[in-house]
Amino acid sequence: MTEKQDSMFSLLREGPLKVCILGSGNWGTACAGLVCANAKESYLFCDQVKIWVREERLDDGRLLDEVMNEKRENVKYLPGFPLADNLVAVRDITEAVRDADLIAFILPHQFMEVTCKSIQAAVKPSARAITLVKGLHICDGVPYSFSKLVETWLGIECSALSGANVAKDVANKQFCESTVGYKETEMASIWQQLFDRPHFRVHAVPDVEGVQVCGAVKNLIALAAGFCDGLGMGSNTKAAIIRLGVSEMKLFANIFFDGVLEETFFDSCGFADVITTCYGGRNVKCAAEFIRREQKSSWEDIETDLLGGQKMQGQLTCKEVHEVLVKFKILQFFPLFEVTHRVAFEHAPPDELLTVFMTAKPSEPKIDKECTHSVLYGPLTRVQRDIKKHVQLCIQPCPPAKKT
Amino acid sequence: MTEKQDSMFSLLREGPLKVCILGSGNWGTACAGLVCANAKESYLFCDQVKIWVREERLDDGRLLDEVMNEKRENVKYLPGFPLADNLVAVRDITEAVRDADLIAFILPHQFMEVTCKSIQAAVKPSARAITLVKGLHICDGVPYSFSKLVETWLGIECSALSGANVAKDVANKQFCESTVGYKETEMASIWQQLFDRPHFRVHAVPDVEGVQVCGAVKNLIALAAGFCDGLGMGSNTKAAIIRLGVSEMKLFANIFFDGVLEETFFDSCGFADVITTCYGGRNVKCAAEFIRREQKSSWEDIETDLLGGQKMQGQLTCKEVHEVLVKFKILQFFPLFEVTHRVAFEHAPPDELLTVFMTAKPSEPKIDKECTHSVLYGPLTRVQRDIKKHVQLCIQPCPPAKKT
Repeated sequence: MTEKQDSMFSLLREGPLKVCILGSGNWGTACAGLVCANAKESYLFCDQVKIWVREERLDDGRLLDEVMNEKRENVKYLPGFPLADNLVAVRDITEAVRDADLIAFILPHQFMEVTCKSIQAAVKPSARAITLVKGLHICDGVPYSFSKLVETWLGIECSALSGANVAKDVANKQFCESTVGYKETEMASIWQQLFDRPHFRVHAVPDVEGVQVCGAVKNLIALAAGFCDGLGMGSNTKAAIIRLGVSEMKLFANIFFDGVLEETFFDSCGFADVITTCYGGRNVKCAAEFIRREQKSSWEDIETDLLGGQKMQGQLTCKEVHEVLVKFKILQFFPLFEVTHRVAFEHAPPDELLTVFMTAKPSEPKIDKECTHSVLYGPLTRVQRDIKKHVQLCIQPCPPAKKT
Repeated sequence: MTEKQDSMFSLLREGPLKVCILGSGNWGTACAGLVCANAKESYLFCDQVKIWVREERLDDGRLLDEVMNEKRENVKYLPGFPLADNLVAVRDITEAVRDADLIAFILPHQFMEVTCKSIQAAVKPSARAITLVKGLHICDGVPYSFSKLVETWLGIECSALSGANVAKDVANKQFCESTVGYKETEMASIWQQLFDRPHFRVHAVPDVEGVQVCGAVKNLIALAAGFCDGLGMGSNTKAAIIRLGVSEMKLFANIFFDGVLEETFFDSCGFADVITTCYGGRNVKCAAEFIRREQKSSWEDIETDLLGGQKMQGQLTCKEVHEVLVKFKILQFFPLFEVTHRVAFEHAPPDELLTVFMTAKPSEPKIDKECTHSVLYGPLTRVQRDIKKHVQLCIQPCPPAKKT
């Protein structure tokens, strides 16, 4: 962010806040349902909510956005659920964001950079963003959160939302929870009011980066949990693998990101999302199949055979995290992530997933200060200093914010 | 504890430490396997390990302890697994504990008081104890940990061990983890060396009470998770219920026990054990059946029909925790525990398990200090002060320690 933005109250002086959702996959569309319901009920928000739908022709040759506006249904990505009548699909992204005070990014992560660049000139400098994107941006072996990139590319403050949510269940109004990571106190409450519904409870923690690390790394843990299933191990073993995964996820977050809080891992985006992901979902299913096929199928083949066109993220996250750990020479602090990578990509025997822990010595007893503060002790303090020295944001900052 | 005990090093000057296990159910017998293997390998411990077996006649009229010593198998509680040759079954409890330096309690919790009283005179004042007992002792609506009771009844320091462990899987050497809660630093390492095996990794955290609260309250959370299964809810919803349960478990621990650490809930005894318990095990199975039978069967009938002689703990823990919350007038801070009690015992419609959260307002954004310290804020500080004032240990302390 180039400079401190005006408070939300001065924005509100000019009228209710205009909301724009960038992305119309199943998650974007399900979230639009939450947002539209709240926009209608709350004095804070403009009734009309815009959703950007990229140019996409359906089999009958018609454009998706036009069909959405006419049929009131996202026939491609969330068929069977009526769209709220205050949702407007917009194909021109510049038009979608031009007036927006609140912008929600709900895109596959590979589209984030090009999308942000395409709206740089159009976004109001007073706007605020929130990212619901799953994943981290790895640049030259250094992990960045998408909130940081949005702030860098667009010069506006960005929060994050992640949690134990399956799009279809949310659209079906099954009860679930989610977590907003916030930086500006007033934004915590705004985002909660925009997304929270009785069946979709949104908690807020002051930790934007931690929330995003959880959303990304959980899929790597699900890969290990899937290997466990493929090996036919019992529930003790799977719980141990999940716990080890969460502990390495915490460590990863604390090493590479600032201000990460213990509490984040207790919230919905933390261990709860890891549970959902490790006991259901695509990654765990494909990983188990990978072991059953004796590591002889490629990940692409397994995706094709099991997911019918959908994609899994775990194997990509596994590669990306590995790249980071290798660059900073800290593989030895992440035995689970390392062995998961070796099983997934280097044909290591799958039972190494466990034997690597069975030959290790008992861990040192933890002492009080390690248990009460979310900071690093021992050799990792040095590692963290080294990393801070080497990390340069290898992303171009946005042009100076234009004045309205 | 009446006075500070001598250090372990002065004990060791007299020779290797003698180990006694009190309890020979499936968990006691499985743990004996771990302990015997370590006793044999380590210079710290006497080779011979004693296990107390209460007087019990088998169908053929023979005594269990005699059959164990002869057949080298616990034919009643862990059939099919050979006992280590350095394990000796002892029927006379006084004889079992008389020389012991390290005493492990692995009993059903209702037998703890009578057992401790029966060995008061025999226990060496220099001995140390560890409890693997699941549950809390509720006396006049006040919860006590069994470590506190052992210290009060016997005048010796007591640690605790709990984790995501199923006895049979441990006996089968499936990989799993466990957590020791310790108070004296030197004991952390001793207990780790006694219990840790390659397939049974033991971590240590300086939080004896927190470890025990987790082991007890998890079964109440499993009851709620089982209701969720019985209602046919998806994985989002179940993850939300588990997360809410863990957050109330943390709150319960922090209100009623001293020195509880965030880290404890990240260890094996914490959310990992909750996962194992909520995705398998007796409590969740019986609770789901309770809903499927439309709350018309008694818990006793369900136990009989589903568990074939085994017992579940969840409904007892639910009652006990409820009694505590009522006594201290803090039900409103535990909405999940309360609604679970109402569904389990007061015929509340099962879907209240969720609707209670669906009508609540969004939670207040958490602020930094709430996220970084394991202490209570807001109205609960007052509640905690009140509780401290009212709590008197309603347990008779032990007679003055005799000198050896």
